[in-house]
Amino acid sequence: MPFTLLKTSPHSAARLGLLKTAHGEVPTPIFMPVGTTASVKAVSPRDLQEMNAKIILANTYHLHLRPGTPLIAKMGGIHKFCGWNGPVLTDSGGFQVWSLKELRKIKENGVEFRSHLDGSKHFFSPESVMQAQREIGADIIMAFDECTPFPSTEGQAQKSLDYTKRWTRAAKEWLTQNPPLHGWEQKFFGIIQGGMHQELRLQSIEELKQIEPDGYAIGGLSVGEPEETMYKMASFCTQHIPATHPRYIMGVGTPWNMLELIIRGIDMFDCVMPTRNARNGMLFTSRGILHYKSATHKEEEAPIDEACDCYTCRNFSRAYLRHLIHSGELLALQLSSIHNLHFYLNLMQQTRQKISEGNFEGWAAEQIPLLRTPL
Amino acid sequence: MPFTLLKTSPHSAARLGLLKTAHGEVPTPIFMPVGTTASVKAVSPRDLQEMNAKIILANTYHLHLRPGTPLIAKMGGIHKFCGWNGPVLTDSGGFQVWSLKELRKIKENGVEFRSHLDGSKHFFSPESVMQAQREIGADIIMAFDECTPFPSTEGQAQKSLDYTKRWTRAAKEWLTQNPPLHGWEQKFFGIIQGGMHQELRLQSIEELKQIEPDGYAIGGLSVGEPEETMYKMASFCTQHIPATHPRYIMGVGTPWNMLELIIRGIDMFDCVMPTRNARNGMLFTSRGILHYKSATHKEEEAPIDEACDCYTCRNFSRAYLRHLIHSGELLALQLSSIHNLHFYLNLMQQTRQKISEGNFEGWAAEQIPLLRTPL
Repeated sequence: MPFTLLKTSPHSAARLGLLKTAHGEVPTPIFMPVGTTASVKAVSPRDLQEMNAKIILANTYHLHLRPGTPLIAKMGGIHKFCGWNGPVLTDSGGFQVWSLKELRKIKENGVEFRSHLDGSKHFFSPESVMQAQREIGADIIMAFDECTPFPSTEGQAQKSLDYTKRWTRAAKEWLTQNPPLHGWEQKFFGIIQGGMHQELRLQSIEELKQIEPDGYAIGGLSVGEPEETMYKMASFCTQHIPATHPRYIMGVGTPWNMLELIIRGIDMFDCVMPTRNARNGMLFTSRGILHYKSATHKEEEAPIDEACDCYTCRNFSRAYLRHLIHSGELLALQLSSIHNLHFYLNLMQQTRQKISEGNFEGWAAEQIPLLRTPL
Repeated sequence: MPFTLLKTSPHSAARLGLLKTAHGEVPTPIFMPVGTTASVKAVSPRDLQEMNAKIILANTYHLHLRPGTPLIAKMGGIHKFCGWNGPVLTDSGGFQVWSLKELRKIKENGVEFRSHLDGSKHFFSPESVMQAQREIGADIIMAFDECTPFPSTEGQAQKSLDYTKRWTRAAKEWLTQNPPLHGWEQKFFGIIQGGMHQELRLQSIEELKQIEPDGYAIGGLSVGEPEETMYKMASFCTQHIPATHPRYIMGVGTPWNMLELIIRGIDMFDCVMPTRNARNGMLFTSRGILHYKSATHKEEEAPIDEACDCYTCRNFSRAYLRHLIHSGELLALQLSSIHNLHFYLNLMQQTRQKISEGNFEGWAAEQIPLLRTPL
């Protein structure tokens, strides 16, 4: 078993775990910085090491288009390619292809789509996506799923789920017959779909249990539904996923989303929010949300967050960061991304500490309103 | 005396020196990375330390417009402001204002100009520029000069030089009456003008000698004249500048330009070329010039330069860098800028070693054609 459940909180569904991968161990709960194209935007692998990142994410859709997954295979796999020697998870590209909307056509055996870059025609099948992920060589690879639109009727959601079910079986079968291309094991995570319909989510979980994946991901959330709906659905899912397996909610979310979802039994997160928002001027801090472009910070000698020990907060004032972003300096994007990622990773580190000490829930209840306070 | 001449080559005008500043010693010959807005584009102060940068440059014109020099004064000076605790030199903005062309009007006591950012009206006098540089607090500050256009008649060049002469005297006088605002000394460098007219260059040097600056800069070169003309004029100047003082050629140049000019007695360089060209895909290597966007490097596992020990070359393949730049990843700009700056700084380090060993000229003669070879 790649996952060891170290502790379950007596006060909530929060868990402490350890996920073993070919490139190292990942303590959970964990946040995974997103490196879509095999680069976490504006930060270097050294920056990631320094902020104590444990695992990063890349995307099969983007890597298929550019530089092409056979090239990554030829270069010895993604770790060597991108200079990050820790664990990597690749998303299957199911969500990205689904997001292409008019550019894609769902068929029985996969999805035909046009590249968002040059309009060129491509076809993803569950098998071809597994092949691509074998070529990339991530430590954790994801099933090829069909994301259910929000809102959707139960009928629509069932139809969508049926694709995911068939494709997940096909993927697992293909993997069984086609061993890794690089010299290490790849764990396979299935993706739960079913929209906002509990019976369908349950059906999806039951189906996955038979396929016996190494982990369970919850897809199709954070697609426009209210926060409370997301929490409720995640909570429903974690109640039915075997406790022995890691639970990963895909594409979520804010710092307070993560705490709320950890309370509900989620172990793993990924989101572009810390890096994307950093580039747009929005920073997460221990006191709430700070917009560093604001004139308020023009003469502020204090760092972004005095409680933060990231490279940015140890060395630079808000006045300087504000000057950099207003001057169009690339360093603004680097320093702000470093801060936000460090903040997310540190929040998970604190979370693990609190769960271990048995006082996570009280701490989280204090943190949640604080984290979302506009400064 | 801030400058110690350690050695003059018996075979050329090449020199080895040590320039003492309030924030550390600068061995010469030296290249100064350009941080126009108090940020060397796409690299952090930590990156600069790791590539062993000894002194960086910032620009009074840009800092006057954004964030404003009084703000930098309030923040404790440029070192604290930008997180770089080593030596800093500020250019006076003379060249930048001159480059504004239709947006500026030269008057007896200074230059009226409009901001390239928002069209707002400003006035730079020799005194106001010294005040601004007192506020910024760089270790070395530059006289306010009037750059002579190329080509220009002797009459035009004389008229231009007359402004520089008057303004340099005015600047020095103002500095004598107005001590530094921060707790450290600021060295004052004069700027030699005179276009491509030797008699005027000589006149400019003679005038400067009376003003007794801490160093001599050569301005108004690399403004469109042939390379040979630049070398000849620089050589003429260094023959007349007192050997006791550092000689800085402004805004120059390529790696081979630097070696040619060191042979002719230049000690200090600055140029945006390593960072700007890096962002455009052009990299300097020990074997010549490499364009890393090229399809040639698509599957190349080797780094940019196998002889280079920069962070980029130690960790990343050309294939990965090419992928990053084609994917629009910011990391491409960071890694390529780190390489080019490291290359420039390392070339100066090697130069100092060779001068010290007494075999610089033979080595430089081998390097010059190699460095400009297209790969």
